[in-house]
Parts: sequence; C-alpha cells; structure tokens
Amino acid sequence: MKAEIIAVGTEILLGEIVNTNAQYISKRLADLGIFVYHQTVVGDNPKRVKETYEEGFQRAELLIATGGLGPTQDDLTKEIAAEYFQKDLLIDETSLQKIYDYFQIRGLTITEGNKKQALIPEGAKVLPNHHGTAPGCVLEDKGKILVLLPGPPHEMIPMFEQYVVPYLQSFQEEILVSRVLRIAGIGESFVEEKIKDLIKNQTNPTLAPYATQGEVRLRITARSTTEEEGFQLIRPMEEEIRKRLGFHVYGIDGTSLEQEVVQLLQKKQWTISIAESCTGGMVASRLINYPGVSSTFMEGFVTYSNEAKIKRLGVSKQTLEEEGAVSAETAKQMAIGAAKMANTYIGIGITGIAGPSGGTPEKPVGLVYIGLCQGDKVQVKKLQLSGDRETVRKRVTLETLDWLRRILLKNRVDER
Amino acid sequence: MKAEIIAVGTEILLGEIVNTNAQYISKRLADLGIFVYHQTVVGDNPKRVKETYEEGFQRAELLIATGGLGPTQDDLTKEIAAEYFQKDLLIDETSLQKIYDYFQIRGLTITEGNKKQALIPEGAKVLPNHHGTAPGCVLEDKGKILVLLPGPPHEMIPMFEQYVVPYLQSFQEEILVSRVLRIAGIGESFVEEKIKDLIKNQTNPTLAPYATQGEVRLRITARSTTEEEGFQLIRPMEEEIRKRLGFHVYGIDGTSLEQEVVQLLQKKQWTISIAESCTGGMVASRLINYPGVSSTFMEGFVTYSNEAKIKRLGVSKQTLEEEGAVSAETAKQMAIGAAKMANTYIGIGITGIAGPSGGTPEKPVGLVYIGLCQGDKVQVKKLQLSGDRETVRKRVTLETLDWLRRILLKNRVDER
Repeated sequence: MKAEIIAVGTEILLGEIVNTNAQYISKRLADLGIFVYHQTVVGDNPKRVKETYEEGFQRAELLIATGGLGPTQDDLTKEIAAEYFQKDLLIDETSLQKIYDYFQIRGLTITEGNKKQALIPEGAKVLPNHHGTAPGCVLEDKGKILVLLPGPPHEMIPMFEQYVVPYLQSFQEEILVSRVLRIAGIGESFVEEKIKDLIKNQTNPTLAPYATQGEVRLRITARSTTEEEGFQLIRPMEEEIRKRLGFHVYGIDGTSLEQEVVQLLQKKQWTISIAESCTGGMVASRLINYPGVSSTFMEGFVTYSNEAKIKRLGVSKQTLEEEGAVSAETAKQMAIGAAKMANTYIGIGITGIAGPSGGTPEKPVGLVYIGLCQGDKVQVKKLQLSGDRETVRKRVTLETLDWLRRILLKNRVDER
Repeated sequence: MKAEIIAVGTEILLGEIVNTNAQYISKRLADLGIFVYHQTVVGDNPKRVKETYEEGFQRAELLIATGGLGPTQDDLTKEIAAEYFQKDLLIDETSLQKIYDYFQIRGLTITEGNKKQALIPEGAKVLPNHHGTAPGCVLEDKGKILVLLPGPPHEMIPMFEQYVVPYLQSFQEEILVSRVLRIAGIGESFVEEKIKDLIKNQTNPTLAPYATQGEVRLRITARSTTEEEGFQLIRPMEEEIRKRLGFHVYGIDGTSLEQEVVQLLQKKQWTISIAESCTGGMVASRLINYPGVSSTFMEGFVTYSNEAKIKRLGVSKQTLEEEGAVSAETAKQMAIGAAKMANTYIGIGITGIAGPSGGTPEKPVGLVYIGLCQGDKVQVKKLQLSGDRETVRKRVTLETLDWLRRILLKNRVDER
C-alpha cells in the first residue's frame, strides 16, 4: 500500500510550529510496511485542501491527514473530506455526548464550534479521542482511504496507536523488519564508497545510509511475513557490511557511542578520568549522559587555564613555556596527571585551539592533541580539524570517544 | 511572491528525521513578506523529484529545496534541477578547490562523490557553503526561481541567512529590518501572555515568538525603505517589551546566554569555578564555548562520584552519608569547595538526579540543587524538573547560567 501524509494548518506554513506529526506517522507506517512517498503541508484553505486530497489520491491509496478538526471556522478538513467523498455530515451522538461531558467536568460552557466537532461524514468509522474533544474518522470508498486525525500530538498519537495501527495492519500481508548499524570514525562518502555495490544491487533487504551529527548510520530493511524471517534476510547483509567496515561499526539500533564506550569500560572494569582544555567538559558530559557511568568514570578536570593544568594535573611549567599549552607533551602530561590524581587506569588529556582566534601558522585553529594514558603506557594523537569553535569541539569529543572505543576493542581481541 | 518549500530525502519519509528546515525557511519567508502555500517532502527518487518541481512551479514562482546535495548516488536534486531547466552541469572551480582544501586540511582522501558536489547547473548562481562541502545554488529562468540548499541545518541556515535572504530581499520593494530579543528564565506561554495585546495588534513592526532548545526568542520585524527607518519603527516596540519582560531579556540577535554571562563576569572581573555532578561538565562546556573565557573561568570539577566530591572539593563525608549526595548541603559544600580549590570569587556546585533511575518518593528524578558561593556568601537553589536524562541536564545548565546572569545584573544595579 502507498500512503501520503497531509498536515493541514496555516501555522505550519508560517513556521510557527514544526510538523512532528509527519515524522511520527511516517516512522510508524514504515514499521507497518506501508510506503510513504510524499508528505505535504497545506493551509486552512478549502480549495487547496481539496486539491491536496485530489493530488494525493492520484498517487496513493491511503491519505492520512492531521489537523483542522478543531472548533473554529478555520477547521475544515472534515467538511472538505465529506464534500470530496460526496457524503453528508451527521451528528455522531456518542461523540457529542463525550464533548458535553468534557465541558461539564471542566465547568465550561460548550460553544457551537465544539458541537460541530461531533459532525462525522456519513458512513465513516469514528475514532474516539481520549485526550481532547475532536474525534477522528476513517472514510473508505472505491479503494481510497482517508484517515482524519487531530493536530495536537498528545491527541493524535494515542488515537493513531489505539485505532489506526490495528486498522492498517489488517491490510498488510508483509511486515518490515529493520536494523540500524551505527558507524564512527569514518565519513558518509567513505562508507558509501565501501558498500556502493550493495546499495546498487539492493532488493530485499534494502540498504540506506544517513548521516546525523558527525555520525553515519546504515539502515537494513527486510520485507517478510514474520520478524524471524526478516532478521534471517538481514543477517547476511549485516555480516557483509561488518566485514567491510570492521571496527567502524560500533553498535546497532538505539546504541549511542557513549553507551558503547561505558559498557566496554564496565566489562573490562577499567576506571577513567578526563582532563579537558578546549573541549571544556564536553567529553565528560557526553559520557555522563549514559546512566550508570559512575562505576567507571571517576573524575573530570576542566583545566582551561595553564594554572589549573599545573596545579591540578601537575603539568610541568617548563613544558607549557617551551612547548606551549597546545602540544603533544602537554596532552601527555594532562593524561598522566588525570590518571594519577583520580587514581584511574585510563587518563585522557585534551588540549587544542578551537578558535576562532589564537591560531598561528605553526599551530593553526583546529589543531588538537589527545593524550591517552593506560596504566604505564601513554599515546598521543594529533588532529587537524576545521569548522567553527563549536564544531571543532564536538568533533574532538567524537574522535576521543571513538579512539577510546577502539583501544577497548583492540584489547578485547588481544585477550581472546 | 508565492513560494513553496520542498525537502528531498527518503530519511524524512521514513520518519528518521524531522523536517525542521521547512519550519525555519517558512518563518524567514514570512518575515520577508513572501507567502508559503505548500510544504512538500519527497524521497530521493528522480521521477518524483522532477514531478515535485513541475507541480510546485504551477502554483508558485519560487521553490526552495533542501537536501540531496550530498556526495552519494542518492543525492540528485541538482541533477534533476539541471534537467528541469535544460542546463548542463559544469564543474565550479571555486567550489571544487574549497572541497579539495576541506579534505586536505583533514588529511583525508577525496572521493569521486565529493567532486560531484562541485557540479553546478550552467548559469546558476553559486551559494558558498562555509560549514560543509556541498555548495547551494540559485537557478532562474522565465520567472521561475529554484533555490537548492544543503539538508543539514547547520549548513543550510548560515547559507540561507548570508546569501538567500539578501537575494530574496532584492525582489521586495521594501526592506525588512529585524531584531531578535533573547529571553531566559521564562517559558513561551508566559511570554505570550505578557505580550498578547502586542501580538494581536501588530501591523508594522510585526512580532513573533519562537522557542528553541528551552529558550524563547522574540523577533520584531519592520518593513521600511531604509535600515535606519526600520530601527526607528522597532525601537518603541522593543522598549515596551523590555518594560514588560524586564531582566528576562538577556540579549539581542546573535548573543548567546554564555556570551552574556562571560562578558558580565569579565566586566566585573569576577573569577569563577564550577563543580558538577549530574551535569557532568555541561555547564563548563557551555561557558567555554565562548572564546576568551579564560580570563574569568579558572577551573571545572566533574565530581560525579562521592569520592571525588570529598577528595577534590572537601565535601564532608558526614553530609554525604546523612543528607545524601543530592541535597542542599552537598550543593553548598561543592560550591564552597570549588571556589576555595580554584581560588575564585564565584564557585558553583550542581548535584541532582537526572534519571532515568535513582529517584525515590522523597527525592524524585529531576530534583536538582545548585549552590552558588560568592565571596563569603552561599545560596542554594532547588529545582524540580521533568523530562529525560538529557533534557533534565540541559535544563539545569540553562537555569544555572541564567541564575548567574541575574546575580551579575543585580549587583551591577546595586553599584549604580
């Protein structure tokens, strides 16, 4: 089945609200194996709403419209739907009673506009609204299905889940099963380069890369009759991708990079402390976003000033004078100092020039050193990044977490 | 002028991301006096993208499309645009050089896909991308204008503001002058309640509130023939709003809350240190996002464990045992400890339960204490927040910065 999602509301066209309903419904339809080829937003204008129904039904059998079921004169998706399907609007007594009850409980006086909300096109299936006054409805005629839902997400979502999902499931023979592979330390174009042939030859399962916030994700989606069969279709494709991308695949589905790192730390019972200069607490803050981090994360030091680097971490004054605060040697001493002060197995030290000023020809903006001390070993990594201050800092944070993850993985392999 | 906004991307139709670009562009076009009657989302499919251009140009003169400029085979908005306007795609040398530079700085190898990003339809105006590799472009032919922009908001927004806004303004007889008032410590609905009459009676200038990331912004926009005249129209409205919202207005236009706080700290020559438990470095990280913070920010302590609170900040073991790590007394001792250890005038201590677990009936998830030590005075603020772990932590960060700002302002007033 092909579907389109329509949002009716001038407030969306004015940019006053974001159309999150379209995302929610799209995602749920993808889960159900219903293809969405278009999302449309149209204002509260009778002519344009009608044209949107007409266009939509030329391309799809199922239209799901949100908004325009309210009590005001502007709200007219139901009226236009009745006109499009050539049906009369009749009062639905159950809905009307619910609206009366709603107002009585709140001690409010009902308006004519509210009564209008109980009007339903003849023959339509009513979708009760347990979180507001506007019922939804489903109109079916000659293979065309129009689902009308209220606009506020807290009314729309429960109605969709309780009434629309079971209704749509009854049409589907196949289901869609999907798995997302999460990838770090490699850009979208490189990922694509490595799996170009898989994308090109995709049938079932399908394969789609997307990039968000410096991270690449690959979604493998299979059509099947059971979940088990779906995962059987996904497995060979997943294995092939893992073979090609190796350790760059750090997790699946909802796993975050910080979750993966913290769980690996916990598994190895490694403790960690972090000293940050240019990132200023950003790495610690991301690790702490994963609950339960307290068993491995001992302490963070935000040593932005030279004084703090000396006093808190024992970085040598001579190093700071001779090599500079942004140097491999300083990063090394920060890492060692953090591990020593917090008495941890791993210590990380980050120092760099995030910009926009402070760069020199020898040490340009974007130059960053990450020191990593592990027991009695110390390594330093040099990065040259670009972008504005915030971009550089976020990038360093990602690189640090990914480096740590790979060290954790490497040791796991060694131990086997 | 009538416009339509098109987003190209299968990931939007699958519900993987929300189309926030449509909201941003809609709002800015409304500011510019350009009417948006439709927003459309279409997948990465050549036929459907072309049909979307065709339909769009039947209804509007201006189409603004986001997405599909990336390096992969899926990315084809530019290719289809060239086909629609019957133009060849030619390499834009400046863009190609920028892409080479981008990869060279990072020490990465350029792929064929990346080179493809420098292809521009013949005769199109190139829109440089200062935050990524994909340039945008404007195609104009027989009264039809197609603007192609990259999909990632952090690339799209600066390009739109720097190049598309001035371009679109050239079609308008009047210019639009606007000022954004940035507001903290008060929610959107409260702001709206206080200025309801101003919004209702708006003519010129107009007034529109936006809420983003827990912060409210009010944009005042005047239509005029000169910039000076525009600001003259804006001034009385701005003064009226400032009178009503008082210290909640913390800045204008591009000012960030951290910038305002750091500049106030610098003006007063106050030094600061921060000890963080549940926020885990997030407050320090935000302050450090403002360059030049080093003259006032001395040190940050990420003391997530009790041990670190005792060892690093001198929090009393007895307090932790009797009152708990999340208590007013602990927050107080953390603030005092931070100021003492780092030898600063201001010390801040933050402790709370960010969730999802760890709450009790007496101390539920979302309970947070912020201690603020100023010289020999200490104050504690108790918050009860809701939302998931990340939301609670971000909210605490905002509240901390806003509280600090107000203390800084109050003292400034006292001194006058």
